[in-house]
Amino acid sequence: MTQKVIVVGAVAGGATAASQLRRLDASAQINVYEKDRDMSFANCGLPYYLGHVIKSRDDMLPITPNDFKEKKNIDVYLKHEVIAVNSAKNTVQVKNHQTGDIFTDHYDTLILSPGARAHRLNFDVPHLFTLRNMEDTDAIENYINDHRVERVLIVGGGYVSLEVLENMYERGLKPTLIHRSEAINKHMDQDMNQVIFDSLKEREIPYRLNEEIKAIKGNTVSFTSGLQEDYDLIITGIGVKPNSEFLKDSGIHLDDKGYIPVNARFQTNVPNVYALGDIATSHYRHVDLPAHVPLAWGAHRGASIIAEQLADNSNITFKGFLGANIVKFFDYTLTSSGIAPHELKHFDYEVVNVNQTAHAGYYPNNSTLHLRAYYEKTSRKLLRAVAVGKQGADKRIDVLTMAMMHGATIDDLTEFEVAYAPPYSHPKDAINMLGYRARP
Amino acid sequence: MTQKVIVVGAVAGGATAASQLRRLDASAQINVYEKDRDMSFANCGLPYYLGHVIKSRDDMLPITPNDFKEKKNIDVYLKHEVIAVNSAKNTVQVKNHQTGDIFTDHYDTLILSPGARAHRLNFDVPHLFTLRNMEDTDAIENYINDHRVERVLIVGGGYVSLEVLENMYERGLKPTLIHRSEAINKHMDQDMNQVIFDSLKEREIPYRLNEEIKAIKGNTVSFTSGLQEDYDLIITGIGVKPNSEFLKDSGIHLDDKGYIPVNARFQTNVPNVYALGDIATSHYRHVDLPAHVPLAWGAHRGASIIAEQLADNSNITFKGFLGANIVKFFDYTLTSSGIAPHELKHFDYEVVNVNQTAHAGYYPNNSTLHLRAYYEKTSRKLLRAVAVGKQGADKRIDVLTMAMMHGATIDDLTEFEVAYAPPYSHPKDAINMLGYRARP
Repeated sequence: MTQKVIVVGAVAGGATAASQLRRLDASAQINVYEKDRDMSFANCGLPYYLGHVIKSRDDMLPITPNDFKEKKNIDVYLKHEVIAVNSAKNTVQVKNHQTGDIFTDHYDTLILSPGARAHRLNFDVPHLFTLRNMEDTDAIENYINDHRVERVLIVGGGYVSLEVLENMYERGLKPTLIHRSEAINKHMDQDMNQVIFDSLKEREIPYRLNEEIKAIKGNTVSFTSGLQEDYDLIITGIGVKPNSEFLKDSGIHLDDKGYIPVNARFQTNVPNVYALGDIATSHYRHVDLPAHVPLAWGAHRGASIIAEQLADNSNITFKGFLGANIVKFFDYTLTSSGIAPHELKHFDYEVVNVNQTAHAGYYPNNSTLHLRAYYEKTSRKLLRAVAVGKQGADKRIDVLTMAMMHGATIDDLTEFEVAYAPPYSHPKDAINMLGYRARP
Repeated sequence: MTQKVIVVGAVAGGATAASQLRRLDASAQINVYEKDRDMSFANCGLPYYLGHVIKSRDDMLPITPNDFKEKKNIDVYLKHEVIAVNSAKNTVQVKNHQTGDIFTDHYDTLILSPGARAHRLNFDVPHLFTLRNMEDTDAIENYINDHRVERVLIVGGGYVSLEVLENMYERGLKPTLIHRSEAINKHMDQDMNQVIFDSLKEREIPYRLNEEIKAIKGNTVSFTSGLQEDYDLIITGIGVKPNSEFLKDSGIHLDDKGYIPVNARFQTNVPNVYALGDIATSHYRHVDLPAHVPLAWGAHRGASIIAEQLADNSNITFKGFLGANIVKFFDYTLTSSGIAPHELKHFDYEVVNVNQTAHAGYYPNNSTLHLRAYYEKTSRKLLRAVAVGKQGADKRIDVLTMAMMHGATIDDLTEFEVAYAPPYSHPKDAINMLGYRARP
């Protein structure tokens, strides 16, 4: 029998889930509702599009509802917001924002990927923006083109803000960074964020920690520090909240922050309702703790697993997150994997550090790589790994993620057979050295 | 009780074993005998030193017997060749090549790391060289400096020859490559070696397969193809043979090729005699097959394990090789891990290929990466992985090696949580795609 599937959200999670399902089920009727203007935009590319590093708009918006209809027979409705779900009756209420009409649609299976939205500062000025989608990006780009923009205030020190700052600088604008606490780039060990401050100082980019906006009048910003400065553009990245208010009376459980807990099949508490992407929370793979990892890999993995479930391949399940994340900041890569720094308190752990060049010391174009691993004292199992450097950090964290995926101990790292030649690594590579350093 | 340890060979395996042992045993008396001129030279750096990519001689010879004596209280005797071993009497016979004297030394433990030596072509001309150590390198460098050298013939298509060719070209000489069969760079799948030929063509570097030297008269070389060409310098890399003739009547077992089989403690058949480095053969970690992996990682790992054995940490043993290897050839990286191509015949296997850009398609400075995995049909366990590309091949092979280290299946690769941001990878990275492509 033909199943009717409704998908809420047409960005990474929703569009991919629909597309994956079509691969496995030629007959399903698939309706995708997206409240915003665009589908499947290249989320992680937004800062680079703004920085003119990515030049092609087609690269940012690789697919349209027409493409999806023609190639995959999937119906995508943009500017259509699902405003309520009734999981007892298997219906959704949809508001067409172009016409104002509200209608009801019925599903056999519901896939929720509504994502999260940016917190906004409560100032009513035209040069204050957030950056979550192509509409935001276009608005910022248009504002820069229509106004005389030189000084840009970046509010918030999360990884997207760091990417936006770098791209603003690289396109010739003058960014300043403020952050309300001392803890920027929260995925990272705070002491290892030092390269961020070094990079800012090297380029004479002003930054202030423990700083917030108190008031904005015209271009003049008053800060909690007492300073007053003029900015032509303000871009905030001060956290997000889940788009889950429409689920309030749906019968679908939300956690206390408004995210949706899912099981190993990405099912919610209601068996024919799935959730994925930024809205879904799950668990870690290598330790027994809940995990919320709102990043692209998880959205794609969730899409694949949900499609397999709906195609009756129920043996393909999710074994949990490892929390791998990475950000480029000017010349540096900052990356980590495993539990987050604030979750280490749940364990009796040890930490080991290695500073080694990215490849054989005598081979040119080298730089120092700082690797760190946290492991549980008794089991010696890896809990978290961190890598920061100009070269080779991404490689080492991916290797350590693969190790944690298999429940490796710190001692196992001595046994890792690195592919060695002078341009790439060391015969005793940084990964091995983590293990050797930790020898009892 | 103070133990007396004799080490045969002072390059990667021997010098590291001595050094590691000293870390764990402050009192052992350690004598290291090395038949050649130098200790601990940077083996893998030789082609790059010859290419003037590595400029510092100190980088190539980082340590001297004086340093070893002063810093570690280890006695290294250069130009001292161990010419016989009596494993019943625990003695070695040593020939001092400077004086011609032969003497006997006694050991409690013997560590064998004599390495291998280059096959040589049987032509008596002054411009014919091999490249195995710093003495060879110096001889080639001196020859180039003292003669008018322009055209260089590289004989043999192994990875060292490829590195030598690249370095000869980069220093402004005109190399030509010949190889006696069609199978160059034997670690690699032959079809994936195409980038080597492409790189040669791009630079108009001549090469001929199925070609051998028939005669050399002055600078004129006659080939089996019938061609005659003039070369100012000839560097051969046509294989090696183990330096194990001195063990003939020692009671220590050699295999039919003259290599020394060792167990998980790097012990030979004689319990107080260990072997490591290029001379030792062992087994694979992920499949039940013998493995001979004469590369730097294994020498260092063997040194560490032998030292732990001698320090009574007998629980630290070797779990086997994965065969990781890598070579840079101009812009390309060619790397593989797992069993060698010719060993696939022992398995009923499937193969899967992925061609994907090294990072997000829309992010600049990109290139195509070709990834291949072989897996056993029934168990679906990974047997071998291959990566070739201009960027990111080393990362992917290291991740796949870590996967094979844990006996991963091809399906497990779908679950690998890559650290994703546009400059580094894809949310469905090439590693994931290997797994997805192989779905039944």
